[in-house]
This record gives sequence, C-alpha cells and structure tokens, in this order.
Amino acid sequence: MDKKKVLVIGGGFGGVYAAKTLERQGRDKVEVELVNANNYFVFQPLLPEVAAATIHSSDAVVPLRQLLRRLQVRQAAVRGIDFEMKTVIVVQGSRLTPIELKYDELVIALGTSVDLKRFPGLREHALTMKNLADAHRLRNHVIGCLETADVTTEPDVKQQLLTFVVVGAGFSGVETVAEVRELLHHALKYYLNIRPDEVRVYLIEYADRILPTFPADLAEYATRRLRINGIQVVTGVGTKSATGTSVELNNGTVIPTSTIVATIGNGPHALVDALDLDLHWGRIKTDRFMRVPRHDGVWALGDAALIPLVEQPAEDPSHYAPQTAQFAVREGRQLAQNILAKIEKTELKPFAYTSKGSLASLGMSKAVAEVYGVKLSGTLAWLLWRGFYLQFFPGFAGKLRVLVNWLLNVVTPPNIVQVQATSPATRYIHYRKGDKVLEPGMVIDGLYTVIKGSLRLTIDNPETGEHFEKLFGQGDHFGDRVLPKSVLCTGLVVALEDTTVLWISQREFTRFVRAYPFLENYFKESSGAGARAQYSRP
Amino acid sequence: MDKKKVLVIGGGFGGVYAAKTLERQGRDKVEVELVNANNYFVFQPLLPEVAAATIHSSDAVVPLRQLLRRLQVRQAAVRGIDFEMKTVIVVQGSRLTPIELKYDELVIALGTSVDLKRFPGLREHALTMKNLADAHRLRNHVIGCLETADVTTEPDVKQQLLTFVVVGAGFSGVETVAEVRELLHHALKYYLNIRPDEVRVYLIEYADRILPTFPADLAEYATRRLRINGIQVVTGVGTKSATGTSVELNNGTVIPTSTIVATIGNGPHALVDALDLDLHWGRIKTDRFMRVPRHDGVWALGDAALIPLVEQPAEDPSHYAPQTAQFAVREGRQLAQNILAKIEKTELKPFAYTSKGSLASLGMSKAVAEVYGVKLSGTLAWLLWRGFYLQFFPGFAGKLRVLVNWLLNVVTPPNIVQVQATSPATRYIHYRKGDKVLEPGMVIDGLYTVIKGSLRLTIDNPETGEHFEKLFGQGDHFGDRVLPKSVLCTGLVVALEDTTVLWISQREFTRFVRAYPFLENYFKESSGAGARAQYSRP
Repeated sequence: MDKKKVLVIGGGFGGVYAAKTLERQGRDKVEVELVNANNYFVFQPLLPEVAAATIHSSDAVVPLRQLLRRLQVRQAAVRGIDFEMKTVIVVQGSRLTPIELKYDELVIALGTSVDLKRFPGLREHALTMKNLADAHRLRNHVIGCLETADVTTEPDVKQQLLTFVVVGAGFSGVETVAEVRELLHHALKYYLNIRPDEVRVYLIEYADRILPTFPADLAEYATRRLRINGIQVVTGVGTKSATGTSVELNNGTVIPTSTIVATIGNGPHALVDALDLDLHWGRIKTDRFMRVPRHDGVWALGDAALIPLVEQPAEDPSHYAPQTAQFAVREGRQLAQNILAKIEKTELKPFAYTSKGSLASLGMSKAVAEVYGVKLSGTLAWLLWRGFYLQFFPGFAGKLRVLVNWLLNVVTPPNIVQVQATSPATRYIHYRKGDKVLEPGMVIDGLYTVIKGSLRLTIDNPETGEHFEKLFGQGDHFGDRVLPKSVLCTGLVVALEDTTVLWISQREFTRFVRAYPFLENYFKESSGAGARAQYSRP
Repeated sequence: MDKKKVLVIGGGFGGVYAAKTLERQGRDKVEVELVNANNYFVFQPLLPEVAAATIHSSDAVVPLRQLLRRLQVRQAAVRGIDFEMKTVIVVQGSRLTPIELKYDELVIALGTSVDLKRFPGLREHALTMKNLADAHRLRNHVIGCLETADVTTEPDVKQQLLTFVVVGAGFSGVETVAEVRELLHHALKYYLNIRPDEVRVYLIEYADRILPTFPADLAEYATRRLRINGIQVVTGVGTKSATGTSVELNNGTVIPTSTIVATIGNGPHALVDALDLDLHWGRIKTDRFMRVPRHDGVWALGDAALIPLVEQPAEDPSHYAPQTAQFAVREGRQLAQNILAKIEKTELKPFAYTSKGSLASLGMSKAVAEVYGVKLSGTLAWLLWRGFYLQFFPGFAGKLRVLVNWLLNVVTPPNIVQVQATSPATRYIHYRKGDKVLEPGMVIDGLYTVIKGSLRLTIDNPETGEHFEKLFGQGDHFGDRVLPKSVLCTGLVVALEDTTVLWISQREFTRFVRAYPFLENYFKESSGAGARAQYSRP
C-alpha cells in the first residue's frame, strides 16, 4: 500500500501532537510533514515568564526538528490552499519562488491572530502576547521604560514611562500583569532614581471579574493577591482607545502610559479568513470528528477550529471545545487516530474530553488552581503550577533548560539586558484631540503625513512676540525639510481632533527621495513648505 | 571641595574599567556617569559562541547597572559634544528632546565601527561581528540557511545556502569561522535532507597567513586545525565584491553563497569622525597620558584612541597600544588614576603595558595560546581559553551563567531555534553583471528602482513564441503594478552590468502611495508601466 501524505500546517500544541501521534502510530501507513512559519514550537504557558526575563526566550520554545525527529519539518509561510487540487502553496525563507505541496490529508492547525481594529489606536500602539517575539518585545519595552524613566528630567514623562497597563484579564492577561509586576519588583533596585511608589501597574477587564473560567472564589483570591502585589485591578470597564502616550477607558478615564499590553481581540488567522471555509466566531466549523465540511481530506483543530462536543450544538460556547492547550493536545491525538482510521477504513471517533482543571500563576510565588474539582491557592498552588508545566514541557532537554532557568533566577540578579529593536521604517500614530505631536526643542525624526484628522502648528517667538499658525489637514505633511539632516523643532504641533498620522523614518524617506528626484521638488513646493519657518535652528 | 563631574561615553572594556576605577578610588572626589547606547556591557570574546548558539545572547553581556552599582548609568545615544561649553548632547530612548550633560572631565571610549565601503556590495550584503545583535543575527541567519536548504528543490540554491564565507582571519574571523563550523556540525543531524559533505565553509584572508599577532608556528597549527574541521582556509587573496548570492575574490574566483561575514574594515565611530578631533588611522590621537590635545578635560582610550607607548612614536603600529580588551582594561585603570591625579594636582603617569599573551579558540575543543612567551595548542590551550575567559568575565552571576551555558551545552541538543528578524523596509541590493534579479514564477515582493547600472527584462511566451524585451536604466522601476497584492513574475530580469537597486517592501510602498495619491498616477504612467505585461497571472 502506498503511504498517504499527511500535511499538518501549524506547529502549536494541536499540530505537534497530531503529527507526533501520526508518526508513532501510523509510521507504515502515512508520510507526515509539518509546515510552520517558525522552526520552533512555542510553549505558550511560559511566555509571561519570558516577558518577565525569568526564562531565556529560546528556552520557552523547542525546535520542531528536535521534537519531531523522524518526520519532515518545513519552515515556510503558507500562502494559499487549493482544496480542489489538494495542494498547499508555501514560500520558504527568503526564496521568492512559491512551492506546491501535495496532500492526501490536510490538518489545519494555524491557531488564531490578534484583531484589535475595534479599538482606535490599539492596533498602532498596543503590545500583544501571542508569540515568542511578543514576549521578548514586552520585556525589552519594559526595561527600556525603566532606563529612560531613570534619567528623564520631565516629571509627566517619568510618570507615563512608569505606568504599565494590561488590557484583558483572562489567563494571558492575569499571568502577564503578574509577571511584569514581578520583573519591576526585582529590577527597580538597579534604577537609582526610581522610587517603588512611582510605579503604577493596571489590569483592565471589561467583564465584572477576572479569570472567567475559574470559580468565583478563586478569582476573588487572585484579585486580592494581585492587589497585594501592587496591581490596580479595574473590572467592569472597557478600553476605548489608545495613543502612544495614553489609554482611554470607556468610563472616560485617561491613563497616561507608554505601555499598553492587549490580551483581548481574538480573530481568525489571515489565511483561514481568506480561504473558502465556513467560519463561526472566527473559527473553522468542523464535525465531531474534526473534519472540515465540503472539502475532502481536510481537518482542523486547536484554536483555529470550532469542534462541537455535543451532537446538536446550540449558540453556546460550552457546546464546543475550548481554546486551551489541554484540549489541543487531546484533539491532536484524536485527530491523528481518526486519519489512521479513515485510511484503514475503520470507525472514526468523535472528539470528547473533559477538562482536568486549570492553573494560573499570580507572580511572587503565588497561584490559583482548580484540579479535579479541588481548589487551591497560594504558594502550594504555585508549586503545583511549576511542577505541572515542567512535566508538561516536551522533551528532557527542554525540561532541564526550564529548570535551570528557574534555579539560576534564584541566585542571580534579574536579567535587565535591553535588546533594542530595530526601529520601524513607517508607522501609523494615533493622536487624541489636544495631544502634542511635536514640541519646541524636539528632534524631527521623519516625515509626518496626516492620514485622517488635523493638526495645528504654532510658533511663538518670545523675543519679537511674533506668532505664527498653520493648519495641517488630510494629505498635508511636515518634516521633509529636515531631511536628510535632523533639526530641532521650534514650534508646537497639536492634534485638533482624533488624528492618524503616517510617520516615515528619516532614513527610508531619504532613500526614497534620492531614488526619485522629482519627489524632492514636490516636497519643496507643496503644502509642507509653508511650515518651513519651524525648522530653522534655534 | 566640590566633586568634579566625570562623564564616560562608551561602555566597552575601556569605559567600564575607567568608570569602575574612578568610583572605587575617587568616590569622594568625583561624581561619575557612564553613557552608553545599550544598557549592557558586551563581553566581546564570547560573541563567536553566541553566534554558535553555545551561549545565550543575554549571557554574553552584563547589565551596566549591575556592573557599576554605585554610579549613574544612562542609556542614551550621544548626538554631539560641545568641547567649548564642556557639554555632551544625548537623546534618551524614544524621547525626541535632546538633553545636555555638563562635564569637568570627559572620557571618550566609543570604540570603532565597521567600514566596508571599499568593497562594492559588502556593505549591503555582509554580516558583521561587532556587537551582540550581530552575533545573534549571524546565528539566526545560519540556521535559516539550513532550514531552507533542507527543503529546497533547486540544487544551485541549496549549494549557495550551504556555503558560508568568513572574510578576514584575525581573532574575530578565526573564532567566528570555527564556531560557525561547530554549530553546523552539531545542527546537521536534525536536517534530514542535508549531507555533511554538502556544506562548505571558507575563511578568506588578504595577508599570507592567519592570526597575524600570533607566532608563525601557532598560526600554522591553527590553519591545520581549521582545515581538519572542514574549513577551507584561503590566504593571500583579497575580497573584491559581494552580492546577495555570491562573493568575488580578487583572483577572479566567484563563490556562490548566501552568507558572507566580514570581520575586516575598521573605521572610526560616526560621532568621533564628525567631531573636531585629530584622527590618525581613524583613531583619536592622544598623548601618553591619554589626554586629547586641544580640548581641556578630554581623554580617550580603548579602540577609539591612538595611545603612544613610546616618547617619539613613528609611523609604526607597534609604537601604539593595540586594540585589544587586555589593553583597554589597563588603559581604563590608568586613565582613571590620571584623572584623579589631575584633580589632586599630583603627577600623571604615561600609559605602559606589555601584553601577557593571547588566546584564540579554534572550535571543537581546540585552541592556540601564547602566554608569557609559552606556546600552547590543542585541547589544553582550549581549556586554558575557557578558564581564562571565565575568570575574566566580570561578576559572579555572569561567570555562573556562562558556566551553566557551557555545561548545558554538553548534555542538551544544539539550540537551533531561529528567531526571525523583522524584514527590512528598504534595502540596497548589489548585482554583478549577469545576475538574475527575478525569474519567472517568483513572487514580486516590492518596488525595485535602479540606482546605478541597468537591467533587462525578457518575457518569452512558449505558447505563442512571442518575445518581449525591455531595458531598465537609472531611475527606472518595476514591481509597482503588483502592489498592494503580490503577483508572480512571468519574465526574467537580468543585470547587464554591475548594478545597484533600491528595494522598497510592498508594505511600506503601499503605505506611502496611499498617503500620496498622486504617486499612484506617477507609477502608473512612468517608465515602469511599459513592463506591465510581465505581471499578468500565469
């Protein structure tokens, strides 16, 4: 019998456990290949500890090739699926030639993505906590805030830098805020000019309580514990909008902050969204065997899939498998067995599993847990948390590395190394009415173009008493005259309404204009030129 | 007595040891502040091991605040120095307002930068090994090459991906090539489709031998050892130019490769170059006390400085302190004592030091060493190398972390996690005559603009026999029509001569064009439009 080709796209819990089970139980029947954008599996539960610098970034993940030694792992970006031709189209590394991969059975395990478009400014300014890069970025961002706060001479800037806001109080939000608080606690003693009482940490939740999947009394314990650790837990309040310097809640409160972490807003993976698939709540509808209707040989599982747990599911989330690692692992195993059953023409089994419980770390060696109906909280729950995840972490080498990180963390000072990110080339910036875009004495670091809204420039010359004003509307720009050399701003630029600006870095704009000399003339002659006065050196 | 303000700019060996000594020996006389672009000190000798994934990135560095607990550390970029006003101008974090820092004594310890402009294409395409980000980037690049080589179906692409070239065989070049070779050795067993004999590693050196500062017999041993490990050591040949797919030597050899590491081309730090300072060989001339002439209260040391070791130095490098960590540490201590002597109005001492020897790791548990005139090679030298650097690594916590990395490395598989870099928004690409820019079937991923040279597009329709040709000269562009949606190329684009192209990513170009609608018309109507035919879907 020819081996069937099984293609698994996505290397999270669901994809990895499906591939592993197929390889173990069906080696003589199937040839398995796993395609993933990264060459590693992310152990999601440890991401908050990566953000807190407790664990090295690369120790919270496992190379897929080491996890799945006997099957083909392909690091590639999936660009499309042709269900008719049973083909997946991928692009590999920096190669620009797309490759077609044939399959007999296809497992879609692509997870979800973050969708923040309902909240103005959040997409532009919030950090997320989905993957390894996010966790690493959050750590570096927090340390960067401390670095600047330690040396700034502007009190309002210092307050803004020392305020940290986490939006959403599910697992991810609670563990993230707890771990960030712990990082701050350990790091502060190295920042001579920051007093502990200058630091503010917020957890903002739209629902009336945190940790919705936990029993109410454990959630209450968790809330108390977070508050003891100095976290301001705000429930029953939604997030309205964000800028680079503040977040606005829907009760009107504006919190000045340089750090907004959004753990809300799940949306479908871009590819899943683009394909001819039936989605509900942004997830791929499957039958109870995890087969995707209408497409032969296509299966889905994990966070990307909506798998019914009952025969006649209603419009009720509890009728479907929840999006947790615990379920994804079981789905993976069952799905693999169903593929083998299909090939062997035996009976497929519907997916069925009951949660064994859940655990949430609260930082500072405390946690809450509910396991087999038994509720635990405090240090004992925290030890259970660590023990459980250590045992759950795949592979001996990985377990050892995590353990060593935890032990080293006890005897060595916190890792406050800030790896600076390469600054972006272009970005959209959201301003609220009244926000300052540029102040006198600031370095003008790029080209600012108004995409939506309006800005006003005012220049006051204290010596002559002269006053100059100019409005910038949609399509207007400023900052071009400073290029390629950076110059200090002499005027004040303020947003007159909610405004979005496209910022292009000095370096990229200069390269572009040099390649197209006619642009130089355009930027000299058009609207921006009127504001030239502002760029004279002080 | 008022304390004098000493400002140290630069946190390498020289700056850190100067600051540490000042703080220890002159706490009652001086107030010390150290300014550095990063918040950590880089232990340069371990960077090749970071590239080899033997050591975690953040374990080869030490946070400056933990190294210098009692003095002010400021993470900031130095933008200028006003020697008249005794002021240093810095920009902190993402704050755009420059800050002025006053000093009584200023220590310039900014090191050097890489200058590759003498080699066409090398600046655009070579990786460097100067700082932590470089080492981390090299590791990820090498692993990325293995990932793509494992799954590509194009034999010439595979060969190019599996060829690794290090240019320059000083310390850094030799240790880097050795460590990269070792990483490949350990990693290969996880790549099922790569045979060890498909991997090629080159070390290219312009001089007639490697390791110029070592005795000839040790250099010969090192050459033999590198060759045993499978490295092709090529001496007496310079590097002429590079592209994204090859490097050309000045004997005419062209080596197809995706990985060129340049450890050559030292130049002055950009700020040092821009200031009113007397430079020689790109270094700041000082007197024997490390004072900078013409500027009161200004000192320089480390790689940035040219410190005479004799009273009447000639045009001979050996009359000046060499650019090594060993010297920088001693310079730092002596400079600190000279500053204190100046304040106390006692006698300054000229810098004098004789090298105690040197060590170079050759990978695979071998090294060469010359210590107090005694020559060593092999495993014993390697143990000495590790022992010496472990003892030299500053701080107990740091030593412990390095040691744990080395031990873990013995018992756990190699860390082949590839952290993908955010792709650049714009980049210059260098092509040699005849190089293919795009081939039929490739994804067109951005806007290509010819900056220098020329390209030819040919489209052949095998069905109709039609043939289409178009030339692109300076200022011409293609790729605009595919935006914002990516489309496959149907033609072949080839460089007609040595050509430089500015590539702008699809995402950034789309953002720019959306902000300026007139650009959309320009790109529709101008030269690029003629090539429209190529972008029809196959």
